[in-house]
Amino acid sequence: MASSVADACRDADLIVEAVPERLDIKHRVYAEAETTAKPDALIASSTSGIKPTDLQGPLQHPERLLVVHPFNPVYLLPVVEIVGGQQTSEDAIQRAMTFYPTLGMKPVRVRKEIEAFVADRLLEALWREALWLIKDGICTTQELDDIVRYGFGLRWAQLGVFDTYRVAGGEAGMRHFMAQFGPCLSWPWTKLMDVPEFDDVLVDLIAGQSDAQSGHIPIRQLERIRDDNLIAIQKALQANNWGAGEALARHEAALAKDAPEPDWSKPLPTFAIRVPAHWLDYNGHMTESRYLEAFAFATDGFMRMIGTDADAIAAGHSLFTAETHIRHLGEVSRDEDIAITTQVIEAKGKKVHLWHEMREGSRLLATSEHLLIHMDLNARASAEPPPAVRAKLDHVAQAHASLPTPDGLGRHVGQRR
Amino acid sequence: MASSVADACRDADLIVEAVPERLDIKHRVYAEAETTAKPDALIASSTSGIKPTDLQGPLQHPERLLVVHPFNPVYLLPVVEIVGGQQTSEDAIQRAMTFYPTLGMKPVRVRKEIEAFVADRLLEALWREALWLIKDGICTTQELDDIVRYGFGLRWAQLGVFDTYRVAGGEAGMRHFMAQFGPCLSWPWTKLMDVPEFDDVLVDLIAGQSDAQSGHIPIRQLERIRDDNLIAIQKALQANNWGAGEALARHEAALAKDAPEPDWSKPLPTFAIRVPAHWLDYNGHMTESRYLEAFAFATDGFMRMIGTDADAIAAGHSLFTAETHIRHLGEVSRDEDIAITTQVIEAKGKKVHLWHEMREGSRLLATSEHLLIHMDLNARASAEPPPAVRAKLDHVAQAHASLPTPDGLGRHVGQRR
Repeated sequence: MASSVADACRDADLIVEAVPERLDIKHRVYAEAETTAKPDALIASSTSGIKPTDLQGPLQHPERLLVVHPFNPVYLLPVVEIVGGQQTSEDAIQRAMTFYPTLGMKPVRVRKEIEAFVADRLLEALWREALWLIKDGICTTQELDDIVRYGFGLRWAQLGVFDTYRVAGGEAGMRHFMAQFGPCLSWPWTKLMDVPEFDDVLVDLIAGQSDAQSGHIPIRQLERIRDDNLIAIQKALQANNWGAGEALARHEAALAKDAPEPDWSKPLPTFAIRVPAHWLDYNGHMTESRYLEAFAFATDGFMRMIGTDADAIAAGHSLFTAETHIRHLGEVSRDEDIAITTQVIEAKGKKVHLWHEMREGSRLLATSEHLLIHMDLNARASAEPPPAVRAKLDHVAQAHASLPTPDGLGRHVGQRR
Repeated sequence: MASSVADACRDADLIVEAVPERLDIKHRVYAEAETTAKPDALIASSTSGIKPTDLQGPLQHPERLLVVHPFNPVYLLPVVEIVGGQQTSEDAIQRAMTFYPTLGMKPVRVRKEIEAFVADRLLEALWREALWLIKDGICTTQELDDIVRYGFGLRWAQLGVFDTYRVAGGEAGMRHFMAQFGPCLSWPWTKLMDVPEFDDVLVDLIAGQSDAQSGHIPIRQLERIRDDNLIAIQKALQANNWGAGEALARHEAALAKDAPEPDWSKPLPTFAIRVPAHWLDYNGHMTESRYLEAFAFATDGFMRMIGTDADAIAAGHSLFTAETHIRHLGEVSRDEDIAITTQVIEAKGKKVHLWHEMREGSRLLATSEHLLIHMDLNARASAEPPPAVRAKLDHVAQAHASLPTPDGLGRHVGQRR
């Protein structure tokens, strides 16, 4: 932990400024940062609305300042708005556009600087209309939120605004959609020409309704619910390889590629995760199918180690699971860290026989025995693996031949000890 | 299929009107409907914006007309806005509020009638701001959509607008949040005071950008992607029992309660589903953990049949899976209908030994053998089941004793035939 701004910035390549939204405070922080910062260190302001041109004015190196606007909660929402000012260099913008994806973020470059950029303008427009609806007693905050989260919010989470309307327009296309709905712009469908007065009466009304809606849930718990849902939604989109889920898949694949060479002489570390809320069931523990999901991820991890990665699969070679035997030995709950190791029992011809063990710390939670078959995806038939995979498999099978036989191997369901 | 409006309405309890948004057409349809409709049949207009008072004017029974405004795609988005006019009876409103949940829908009653109701006002506000952003060249339609779907869209899908801000306000509460952001209302953060001219130049700009963004995806495919994502997101929220997922869970539980008594002498039909897109993996078929998820749902179905339902679990009795052996015998892909039957092998003392078979039509896809243990959830220890469950289990175990032993029972992984 650095004790001053100057200290914190000394060896940094990227300086993230997230101080209050006052130009004088921000300028003071930049001045101190520049006393120690390397001349080409980026300065990324988290401002929600101030133009970068206004921020960079007094800097010694104004060309390295840009806005990188994240969204709450920043540790789960991938998007950042990238906005350059009049003096920002193209190099600074490009470095930010290249760096943020390595964190699993999604940078979107805003083409011209304006106050509030893009997202907060959209949010502000909807917010003003929402204030009118509450003030005029058309609905309560609870009813408005329900209309959003049981309705168009589910569309925006995956398609955004224009693609949603593109689909709604159907085969006739976007032009047709707009021709149909364009006239609404002159209808009295919003009060956008006007802004409600933000007086105590309105504040009391909204605060009171919000308490009635969610006052029974402590803020920390509501925050946790929000985060659990953000994770569940993004993992769901990942299964469809779409939107925020596609970014997540790309990020996980990049991390997997960077994995160090394992110690082949031991059971291999093939998967680890902190148990998310949506993996639990009505019994309050990780549900049985998530055990197999974790074991399947471990199989995927093993496959990458022997060269059956995404490229190999695209080229037509994969492994299919033929048989699985899971023994549940312990319960596990949310936020516990589980890790799986994998031992090769046999790998001959078209078959691979694996043994996975799942642990939380030293506690054995489950074992899973798998029989996998090498597949030619083009012929959709079993096949010998490619030579490079064969070589890797032979190597690990030989290394694991001297490991002790796992306790529980080769058992059938209900077999007595 | 009825050949006329009069025909279609003859024996209906609910008449859904979804004709074009022109008052003269709607009035003509209502007049024909009333020639045959029962006097107390509800007439629900799908209008997106016309006030029910304007719709019901000429009706013989205006008290039975109300607006029930659904959202595209209506077969997947749960919300409907319920709006009564000056002559709508409270009884008509209450019947709609009671009926729609039986379809798994979420009715939200709008308190006062206004044009465009609630959702379309919010959408219109955001749409007007979006048009300005595109027209002024701040971003493209693609960039705007990315900012929504990688950002606040993920929040709105689960919390809506006010609860999102409630969490953002933190412990200080909603009043604090509003005090902080209230002043923005007078800042130039939107162009809401003004409406862009909807001329050919703007239409061409948006249509062109939209084509560049998604023109490579045929509309039908984009629609399918949207629907796949809506299903995946709502199932993800169901795992957290929240928002649209909570409504789905409640609906599925209600359907399960209505299930007819099974024929106990045969393997029991315990689960069926059309394979959704997010159950597939990189090999293009249903992924292995979803086999176990389906088998776990079958176990849940069996548990409900023997009385270990949600109420029993709340009272502290459940079944935990100790061991599972799955054999994958066939592949299955999206939109195929799979069904699982369940045979009791043995049910003595604290143990239940089950055999599930999964089929697509007559094609056997997989078998799964399970050892389950009765649990006392309060003591978190194995226990004898309650007497009512014991009696049901004895009944089905005895009925299944005469069924043939399943092919594949008691095998271990890799066992030769």
